[in-house]
Amino acid sequence: MKKFINQADDFIPEMLAGIYLAHPDALRCVNDDPHCLARVGATPGKVAIVTGGGSGHLPLFLGYVGEGMLDGCAVGDVFQSPSPEQILAVTQAVDTGAGVLYLYGNYNGDIFNFDMAAEMAEMESDIRTRTVVAADDSAGAAPSGEGNASARRGVAGIFFVYKCAGAAAANGGCLDTVARVAQKAGDRVRTLGVALSPCIVPRIGKPGFQIGDDEMEIGMGIHGESGIRRGPTLPARQIADEMMSWLLADSPCQSGDEVAVLINGLGATPLEELYLMYRHVHHTLSQSGIRVFRVWVGEFATAMEMAGMSISLMPVDEELKALLAREANTPMFRQFSA
Amino acid sequence: MKKFINQADDFIPEMLAGIYLAHPDALRCVNDDPHCLARVGATPGKVAIVTGGGSGHLPLFLGYVGEGMLDGCAVGDVFQSPSPEQILAVTQAVDTGAGVLYLYGNYNGDIFNFDMAAEMAEMESDIRTRTVVAADDSAGAAPSGEGNASARRGVAGIFFVYKCAGAAAANGGCLDTVARVAQKAGDRVRTLGVALSPCIVPRIGKPGFQIGDDEMEIGMGIHGESGIRRGPTLPARQIADEMMSWLLADSPCQSGDEVAVLINGLGATPLEELYLMYRHVHHTLSQSGIRVFRVWVGEFATAMEMAGMSISLMPVDEELKALLAREANTPMFRQFSA
Repeated sequence: MKKFINQADDFIPEMLAGIYLAHPDALRCVNDDPHCLARVGATPGKVAIVTGGGSGHLPLFLGYVGEGMLDGCAVGDVFQSPSPEQILAVTQAVDTGAGVLYLYGNYNGDIFNFDMAAEMAEMESDIRTRTVVAADDSAGAAPSGEGNASARRGVAGIFFVYKCAGAAAANGGCLDTVARVAQKAGDRVRTLGVALSPCIVPRIGKPGFQIGDDEMEIGMGIHGESGIRRGPTLPARQIADEMMSWLLADSPCQSGDEVAVLINGLGATPLEELYLMYRHVHHTLSQSGIRVFRVWVGEFATAMEMAGMSISLMPVDEELKALLAREANTPMFRQFSA
Repeated sequence: MKKFINQADDFIPEMLAGIYLAHPDALRCVNDDPHCLARVGATPGKVAIVTGGGSGHLPLFLGYVGEGMLDGCAVGDVFQSPSPEQILAVTQAVDTGAGVLYLYGNYNGDIFNFDMAAEMAEMESDIRTRTVVAADDSAGAAPSGEGNASARRGVAGIFFVYKCAGAAAANGGCLDTVARVAQKAGDRVRTLGVALSPCIVPRIGKPGFQIGDDEMEIGMGIHGESGIRRGPTLPARQIADEMMSWLLADSPCQSGDEVAVLINGLGATPLEELYLMYRHVHHTLSQSGIRVFRVWVGEFATAMEMAGMSISLMPVDEELKALLAREANTPMFRQFSA
């Protein structure tokens, strides 16, 4: 296990300690529990957005807590949900009275724990919450999946949902508006990934799955969940073509649309290869009569040291374009207004 | 070779095509040669900064061309220098009459080609250039190295040199000022890396070196150059301690100083592990009576899919602090003013 790590049990606490030391002006810990992370400074009357989920996906989730994005994050252990109590503590810390949007990915553990936290927040603290679950993985809509939204995992496309909802909240939107925008973005965004290598959960100490030296798996999830098709690695052009064919079949976008594109590295894949893949994606979109509003290329939702990448597409209208273009400033994501 | 790639010969041209498609408002190609990259829009009278070097290190080098940083970059093939003619073309494209600073890493091929370009720029176009070479790798000062600046490779610490020189130029500094600031930052910054795995140059198709499943190498260069010591992998704490001990012995910083810190991932190492390492670095600095002015954590200078990381330290004074804190906005690095 070639990792910079001490004891496996200390991996996340020590990582969090490093994050608080690195960003003391931006992030704070709630109730002395480092897994309960909140933004430094609150804007009175602003709707707060709380996310959470398992660790191992940086900059997802906690890296997006900051100006123009999110207000708090409940941090689980590697690939594990945070507890309802941790979600509640974050909720109480960031609520300004305008209500809280819970925005996270479609995993049963997270849904269960966030729902429980929502009940406790209302009962204990009279905090109104709304929930939007990101379920963007097109692999869930493939014939091998269950073909409906509930089967879709939440993957990298949640970045667009955070960006739009975060901008709406920063612009002063009320809870209904922020939830509506998040749902709108979530309904539109679709993602498909491809994995070339596994990753190792520190406590387990060995790869979560095996994949041959000459194999890839299209549609694999960010925890190593089974994808659509495993086969020999192909030239980049053919991988991109196959992914775009799945994605465009599942995405609501069509000829004449404008889309936001996210080219996301899963961990070990170099930025060089992501840009090379974007070239193919751009050409495929052009050939389909779809214009690129803007593309984000880099690591936005990872699976530790997994080699692979994902493509997300979200058709945009004027409202979403303005929200995507708004400035954001978080410890792990910064963007000037366009 | 698990890469998203088509033909090895097309890797860099296709990567560059993706970069120009992704950032049309920020980057332009000079003389129809995609290897000659310049910023869109010039500020009349601003000193221009040109860099260059081999590919395979994104965001280094070209990713820092933009507002508050660099003006142009001559892009070589993977781990290969760009040609003098390419450097000259970039120089001619970005000069506004105020002169051009050549700022790049300490590699013989780059030095030879930039020196030749400087002569051509003066003779052919009457463009005044100055040169500052970043040579921050503390591995070059170790007993196994030659122990002098000429033996130091330029590695991730060049990011601080870019940041300071770029801010000085953006603030309206003349060529002498920008060169002085670059030299000052370059004289102060020191870096030490550790590699856990090799990377594969696409045209070669196999790893540039072998390293055992339980081995690491401290001081390895970003092209796989030999380091200070190879041995069994150790707990993160011990790796950090050993690296900091080399770095602090070689760095000009001492108790009472304030330092800028860069925790850089070499490619495949997750952000989680970089933050975990920063925790150790922070504590070691505290114990040495050194305060952290600010830390940057992420991928700033990579070696494609190499697993590993580097630590850079630069003692700062008020001038360097103000330059580091200035806003910057490039395709692959963004920072709001502090």
